[in-house]
Amino acid sequence: MARRPRILVINPNSNEAVTEGLRQAVKPLTYADGPEIVCETLAEGPFGVETQEHVESVTLPLRRKVESTNDADAFIIACYSDPGLFVAREGTSRPVFGIAECGVLTALSRADRFGVIAIKSRSIPRHIRYLRQMGLMERLAGERPLEMSVAETASGDGTLARMITVGRELKDLDGAGAIVMGCAGMARHRKPLEDALGIPVIDPTQAAVTMAIGTLAVG
Amino acid sequence: MARRPRILVINPNSNEAVTEGLRQAVKPLTYADGPEIVCETLAEGPFGVETQEHVESVTLPLRRKVESTNDADAFIIACYSDPGLFVAREGTSRPVFGIAECGVLTALSRADRFGVIAIKSRSIPRHIRYLRQMGLMERLAGERPLEMSVAETASGDGTLARMITVGRELKDLDGAGAIVMGCAGMARHRKPLEDALGIPVIDPTQAAVTMAIGTLAVG
Amino acid sequence: MARRPRILVINPNSNEAVTEGLRQAVKPLTYADGPEIVCETLAEGPFGVETQEHVESVTLPLRRKVESTNDADAFIIACYSDPGLFVAREGTSRPVFGIAECGVLTALSRADRFGVIAIKSRSIPRHIRYLRQMGLMERLAGERPLEMSVAETASGDGTLARMITVGRELKDLDGAGAIVMGCAGMARHRKPLEDALGIPVIDPTQAAVTMAIGTLAVG
Amino acid sequence: MARRPRILVINPNSNEAVTEGLRQAVKPLTYADGPEIVCETLAEGPFGVETQEHVESVTLPLRRKVESTNDADAFIIACYSDPGLFVAREGTSRPVFGIAECGVLTALSRADRFGVIAIKSRSIPRHIRYLRQMGLMERLAGERPLEMSVAETASGDGTLARMITVGRELKDLDGAGAIVMGCAGMARHRKPLEDALGIPVIDPTQAAVTMAIGTLAVG
Amino acid sequence: MARRPRILVINPNSNEAVTEGLRQAVKPLTYADGPEIVCETLAEGPFGVETQEHVESVTLPLRRKVESTNDADAFIIACYSDPGLFVAREGTSRPVFGIAECGVLTALSRADRFGVIAIKSRSIPRHIRYLRQMGLMERLAGERPLEMSVAETASGDGTLARMITVGRELKDLDGAGAIVMGCAGMARHRKPLEDALGIPVIDPTQAAVTMAIGTLAVG
Amino acid sequence: MARRPRILVINPNSNEAVTEGLRQAVKPLTYADGPEIVCETLAEGPFGVETQEHVESVTLPLRRKVESTNDADAFIIACYSDPGLFVAREGTSRPVFGIAECGVLTALSRADRFGVIAIKSRSIPRHIRYLRQMGLMERLAGERPLEMSVAETASGDGTLARMITVGRELKDLDGAGAIVMGCAGMARHRKPLEDALGIPVIDPTQAAVTMAIGTLAVG
Repeated sequence: MARRPRILVINPNSNEAVTEGLRQAVKPLTYADGPEIVCETLAEGPFGVETQEHVESVTLPLRRKVESTNDADAFIIACYSDPGLFVAREGTSRPVFGIAECGVLTALSRADRFGVIAIKSRSIPRHIRYLRQMGLMERLAGERPLEMSVAETASGDGTLARMITVGRELKDLDGAGAIVMGCAGMARHRKPLEDALGIPVIDPTQAAVTMAIGTLAVG
Repeated sequence: MARRPRILVINPNSNEAVTEGLRQAVKPLTYADGPEIVCETLAEGPFGVETQEHVESVTLPLRRKVESTNDADAFIIACYSDPGLFVAREGTSRPVFGIAECGVLTALSRADRFGVIAIKSRSIPRHIRYLRQMGLMERLAGERPLEMSVAETASGDGTLARMITVGRELKDLDGAGAIVMGCAGMARHRKPLEDALGIPVIDPTQAAVTMAIGTLAVG
Repeated sequence: MARRPRILVINPNSNEAVTEGLRQAVKPLTYADGPEIVCETLAEGPFGVETQEHVESVTLPLRRKVESTNDADAFIIACYSDPGLFVAREGTSRPVFGIAECGVLTALSRADRFGVIAIKSRSIPRHIRYLRQMGLMERLAGERPLEMSVAETASGDGTLARMITVGRELKDLDGAGAIVMGCAGMARHRKPLEDALGIPVIDPTQAAVTMAIGTLAVG
Repeated sequence: MARRPRILVINPNSNEAVTEGLRQAVKPLTYADGPEIVCETLAEGPFGVETQEHVESVTLPLRRKVESTNDADAFIIACYSDPGLFVAREGTSRPVFGIAECGVLTALSRADRFGVIAIKSRSIPRHIRYLRQMGLMERLAGERPLEMSVAETASGDGTLARMITVGRELKDLDGAGAIVMGCAGMARHRKPLEDALGIPVIDPTQAAVTMAIGTLAVG
Repeated sequence: MARRPRILVINPNSNEAVTEGLRQAVKPLTYADGPEIVCETLAEGPFGVETQEHVESVTLPLRRKVESTNDADAFIIACYSDPGLFVAREGTSRPVFGIAECGVLTALSRADRFGVIAIKSRSIPRHIRYLRQMGLMERLAGERPLEMSVAETASGDGTLARMITVGRELKDLDGAGAIVMGCAGMARHRKPLEDALGIPVIDPTQAAVTMAIGTLAVG
Repeated sequence: MARRPRILVINPNSNEAVTEGLRQAVKPLTYADGPEIVCETLAEGPFGVETQEHVESVTLPLRRKVESTNDADAFIIACYSDPGLFVAREGTSRPVFGIAECGVLTALSRADRFGVIAIKSRSIPRHIRYLRQMGLMERLAGERPLEMSVAETASGDGTLARMITVGRELKDLDGAGAIVMGCAGMARHRKPLEDALGIPVIDPTQAAVTMAIGTLAVG
């Protein structure tokens, strides 16, 4: 392959601010002689992926995006519900990573039991069902919600403070040894949250991009 | 941190040829502006880690190695039994990765169920016990042995052919969708094995180094 | 409610012959003073649901069908992959049943461990993933494929014979005490298969309609 | 079979008021052209089944009742401990259903995780042991007791109020998406409890009779 | 307590030859200054406990036996189905042990995974159901039947040879590291079987008596 | 074997007071015509085994102790972390028991779910990881710490009172039906704690010695 390998990170919602956040999130993983990492917004996506209907609405657009993108060597679906992961994989022989899956797996490489910070409590049953599907429930310490809107978490000054509060509950009450941030748009809080909690904090998009880099490097 | 971050990959056995193999394995993951990846042989290690006694004999030397190495930012224990992983973690606040754990977790990011190729059948109960400890048995398709000595796998021409045979059994009979090479010294067979099987094949050292890179990048 | 309650059974594929088979399947469950059971073909459905793409292609049409159907009191999604089950439930307060889920649950009411007859082996990983999500793997004896096309199973004389062969393997080799027919279109083989095997055989559509009847009766 | 099929619902305790409650419970499931549903009191039963000794005291009488009843086509053991279920099944080729098993399985057809309302806390370990035997613990949200006597629940005006309180704890604190009433005698509270909680509430006797109807219909 | 403590081993079947076998089995565990170990035949028992009906027929007689025996300090139910274990415990504050439970637990103290030799295949589903109830399935390597009658195993010269064959399958094919003899009457074969297989073989009655001795010693 | 069989109980820490406590603990299990039970201090052991480093520091000394001790017929590793259990087993064909494993298995012979009293909370993740490895998590009611130093528990008058408080929480809040004392040095509190709680309390060293006695008796 003459050109530099390329990882396409797809933001399944149409909120361009989230995509810009992804670009910031993956910057530290961009090496001059490593793969190019491109973040794109899914045109067909809803403004936020908050319901099961939102999830389903992006599965086929994601599949088509993957199938029609010839110049990418690996794909990241950058939404913590991993929408369309299986159907996207079915449509290509190139690797496709889901950020929820990679976030949790990376947390497992750092600690015995992990906790998840969700934006809202209504997402938790969906996440639990997915963890059960992944067969990883035995190592879940707990999942707790911020109970903020995506908009609030994006703009609000209080987001980090709330994340620290919830993270401490996961650590101290539930026994989590690592924390997964259960959302695509919180990478900028990763480091201060980790510093405040004193245990590893995983941004799931960074986790997925890392796995894509490793896969392409040896491919 | 002024200097370039450094990942120390420790080969717990004293077989320098294996360490050299590790150096080749991690080369594709070495970026000019990424972390430096250094592979070292544990002086105190046995020539091969094949028994539980071998495993135990390196746990404290690994701990001491980690504690006394000030110029590394992350550590990889490059033996598929993950010897000393927990005691090494206890001795440092820097991340320590085990290749068995990272190999399996990376396989889970690629397929629903994974298979493991072991060198010898006598390692399998130890591996299974460890998978049970990790809470990951639900996604194990199977583990099958080459029944070759480490020496044979290192030198023998027949190793790849045997790996393909065993890999096909894991894929076709056991339903594995990805394969983990259950040994530190088989990276050079990864690509041809993957090509022959048509499913992802994971070298566990490369998997662990990848996770270390991702961790340091965002740290 | 003045009118007689109505159960809408939706065939997510557009094969009208399958819908006609569903009509035959539910006939024994139609009581003069019980709910009306109506079987409809999803206009947007593919001719058969055989791939993950097929599954995803019907989730939102099923949701819309449910939301826009005001004169039904319960819904059955009559495809053994339970496409769109969660998104359909999100869109209505009326009960929505998936035939895979109901088929397996009904088998559990009859025997300690169950077996599943799949049409093709490529569906089995999807089914296993779903059983893991349902938390029901502990009671799965095994799943085995007919390796026939849907067309062959629909028309071919050899279908029942092949089902008996596979059913006997599930019973004798895997220890199944009940069999779930893992497809929406095989109800007419249920009785002869049960007679041949000597253990309960569950048609999943009949299982789901039964649960819907019970729910409406007491609602 | 010339005569109309018949389902025999056996109340294993000798409290005729409970049997009368069962008759009311199954009435909505009685169709003119469906199976006849007959509820009988087990003469040998204790006044209530509250201890393990009570459970054991009815197993063989239930077996004999099943074996000596020639004019029934399916049997329901209407006690939430499913006493004698396996021994009754051993004695007949006709289907025998346990209400605890059917209640839980039916709840699983409606929600991801279920809660159970027990009469007394001392039954909970027995129920948990049974759920573990059924391999269904992964989907249990919780079980909580009313801490009332069977007599109190039968007569007392406060029963529904107490059930609503406990049901809300199961829903709000434990995350239950459906509730199983863990007793044979509470069917009359099902609808008001469901209305108060806003999630499906399952009467286990109705669940079991439903499954028996479905089985006979296609048999 | 002035008198020497006494362990009552109850053979729930009425085959006095089995009781005599139990006496031989427990002899090595009888110390001059240890508890007295008395083996008795349950008068009400069937000649052999081979069916679920046999199991149920002895539960209440065992309870009554326990309740009416004032001069025993611990009880052993010496049948590999552990009939009446829970109801017997309910009737006394003195410890009651089941030999199946103790046999399996003792095997777990010797090896990572265990195998069970059953007399007949029809007992295996009952045993599996019980292992699931005990939450111990993760460590079961397999269970295989002799397919002999209890009478044959009692008298036949070929019993040991058959046990060795089946034990080797459990060890070599299933990966068992210890074997539980799934019957009360095979203690005399324990030592030769263990010598032939080269892995620990557990007689469940001896395992249960051992646990009773330990409990009484410290009580 | 002409001489009396001998069980060697090894205290892996070098605190002779703990060894003396073990001698008291095993006294009730010493029969004139039973095996001799000898308790020894591991010379190389740390003063207490409180960290993972302490655990690792004794694994090979324990192996060598076992290998070099010709006059013992069974070995007990008397530390609740079961250090070196697998490596010791690898070095001998004689049985080696771990007290944590035997303590938990013995608790399972007495009650459906068990609780563990830990000395300090920091040991709990290590214990949980080990329980997961043993595949026994399904029956854990909970583990709670005394939060006392080993020294305090050895000398302090308040130890029993604190154990009763914690034991009551395990029983009443977590549903434990039996308690394992998660430490080698608490045997003298076993009886008063059991009397206070009204449920079985297991000293793990006594549990392991019991299993060793049973093994030697029939060997």
